[in-house]
Amino acid sequence: MNKFIPVFSPDLNGNEKLYLNECIETGWLGSNGPFVKRLEQEFAKFCNQEYGSCVTNGSAALDVAIRAMKDVYKWEDFSEVIIPSFNIISAAQSCIYNKLKPVFADAEINTWNVDTSKIEELITNKTKAIVIVHIYGLPSDVEEIIKIAQKHNLKIIEDAAQAHGQEYKGRKCGSFGYVATFSFFTNKHIACGEGGIVLTSDKELIDKINYYKNLCFTKDKFIHTDLGWNCRMSNLQAAVAYAQFEKLDKTIEKKKYIGKKYHNLLKEIPAELSVEKTNYAQNHYWIFGVVINKELKLTAKEAIEKLAKENIETRPFFYPMHKQPVFNELGILDNIKRPVSEFLYDKGFYIPTGLNLTDEELEYIAEKVRNLFA
Amino acid sequence: MNKFIPVFSPDLNGNEKLYLNECIETGWLGSNGPFVKRLEQEFAKFCNQEYGSCVTNGSAALDVAIRAMKDVYKWEDFSEVIIPSFNIISAAQSCIYNKLKPVFADAEINTWNVDTSKIEELITNKTKAIVIVHIYGLPSDVEEIIKIAQKHNLKIIEDAAQAHGQEYKGRKCGSFGYVATFSFFTNKHIACGEGGIVLTSDKELIDKINYYKNLCFTKDKFIHTDLGWNCRMSNLQAAVAYAQFEKLDKTIEKKKYIGKKYHNLLKEIPAELSVEKTNYAQNHYWIFGVVINKELKLTAKEAIEKLAKENIETRPFFYPMHKQPVFNELGILDNIKRPVSEFLYDKGFYIPTGLNLTDEELEYIAEKVRNLFA
Repeated sequence: MNKFIPVFSPDLNGNEKLYLNECIETGWLGSNGPFVKRLEQEFAKFCNQEYGSCVTNGSAALDVAIRAMKDVYKWEDFSEVIIPSFNIISAAQSCIYNKLKPVFADAEINTWNVDTSKIEELITNKTKAIVIVHIYGLPSDVEEIIKIAQKHNLKIIEDAAQAHGQEYKGRKCGSFGYVATFSFFTNKHIACGEGGIVLTSDKELIDKINYYKNLCFTKDKFIHTDLGWNCRMSNLQAAVAYAQFEKLDKTIEKKKYIGKKYHNLLKEIPAELSVEKTNYAQNHYWIFGVVINKELKLTAKEAIEKLAKENIETRPFFYPMHKQPVFNELGILDNIKRPVSEFLYDKGFYIPTGLNLTDEELEYIAEKVRNLFA
Repeated sequence: MNKFIPVFSPDLNGNEKLYLNECIETGWLGSNGPFVKRLEQEFAKFCNQEYGSCVTNGSAALDVAIRAMKDVYKWEDFSEVIIPSFNIISAAQSCIYNKLKPVFADAEINTWNVDTSKIEELITNKTKAIVIVHIYGLPSDVEEIIKIAQKHNLKIIEDAAQAHGQEYKGRKCGSFGYVATFSFFTNKHIACGEGGIVLTSDKELIDKINYYKNLCFTKDKFIHTDLGWNCRMSNLQAAVAYAQFEKLDKTIEKKKYIGKKYHNLLKEIPAELSVEKTNYAQNHYWIFGVVINKELKLTAKEAIEKLAKENIETRPFFYPMHKQPVFNELGILDNIKRPVSEFLYDKGFYIPTGLNLTDEELEYIAEKVRNLFA
């Protein structure tokens, strides 16, 4: 195939254009615009939370969420927060910026989510919270984590950036955290290029979040008793995100179709694929992952290079947090082994799941993936 | 007048809609989209700089600009940066986040810009840079500041967030700084709700800026040797900002018309108004300010409340940086007096300069402002 196949592509055939035009016609560009408000209210409700606050992106969502949690619960500096090691850097970085110490839990080999049996050994008298991340769109084992949190009196921060509309035992992801965060990055189920949202049912917390995201402006506008950030989301971004939210069901349906197709086409290869379901959830394939069998010499990096030559864009899996040079330099790492996260990085990558993929393209991709092992 | 008159309103009658539709039709939502690139290249060129990097907003622009400067020039922690006290909090906050100490220079009574005669007394052997801010759209006395900077071997950071297309002695604002930053907030001459850009002609610096604004991702995508932020700007925001940039001349023309009109209508009131021109620049009235005469009991706060009752939205002037509770608590303030900044806050406010204002509205506003002094 001569055509380049991107790893993601959005479906923009809903009301995106209509709503953007409405922004221009009404003159509402800024963060106080009606699409921002509508998205905050309706997406919060959809996730069974009381309040929403739109922000610039998923990383910013974690920055303000964790800042507000620290503030409201009066966590001391250098309190500890448990985070999956197999994850993007955002949550751990937010901890550092908020003078908290991230502590990394290893992944589970089948689901790639946190290994819940590895959490308790990380808890100390400084631990204040656990960050649940639904890795690659498959829910974590939420009930197990909540049990541990309750036993040790810890708060749950739920990073659902990869799990819009996803459910754990029939309950929406984003409804479990004391705060929950989402990203609306281009490759997400709800995409507006750059964007994010924080949800909570705690009025004090949402007020703090709105305060920190708006440079800590007060009623006396320019008098500041704190430092925050500007991470307000524009009405333009919200207009597109809202249109995407309206057709989330259709997006998930297409993603599931792609996942099923790949499972059929790739069942013979010596690799583990994104699991179809667990006891508590069905995958909706934010991404479709391939983890090459341990015994094979082939690495993820080599596979990625080979597929790039076939015009197929892929992505490597996350590099474990407990191996990050920046955290090593900050002196926050311990000597606990997290072999699963390391293995997943060495052997894992993901293949295109763009919403505009045709059957022909899916078959082409699958063929080239099979060829890696031929 | 029954109609509420907002302090700002954008003019969206250019190619805004066309370009947004193009984003949807081509599927380009993200920060690597063509409008982002076009805006970076052409706006940099317009300001006589080599490189541009779009970011989420003007505050984020300062965050990454100052971070990159500190890094490239190897400024030690707690190095000092001189900033106007009469200013929004962003530059000072960026210094704090980057472990630098902001030092505040008082304002000059006529232009409200930094009093250049007050800069040298603030310079110590720890001073590394001066932040030039073109307050409310009138250029600072750039040459004077550059002279001081050269004498003491200091770098210039130019915050031109209020001065798009403005000129100092015929040379564009944004061309003077080693880095220059702009905001595209809803009320700016180039408005896209939320957005900003950093300009520089230093390749090493722009590479650092692009690195820090993108979570310090590397070629080995998920391996981090530093912590950054996500402050990427979407293609949607850039599409609108680019359309606004195309008609910047028209915007400035309208602003100048409004400024001239107000000068005529308000020349009798016992207050200082935004100055029409200095030896080195003409005002283009990002805002139109009114500073009530010292002798009168009337405060800016009272004037703002009275005008609000007439359906006229206004804004208070900046609250001086050297009086901010948050900086007092951080222990970074000295005992130097900055009386002009304090006076400007007490007595200054600004009146509507929205791009959709009619003559009738301008006359109504002026009448109500005159009534404050009747």
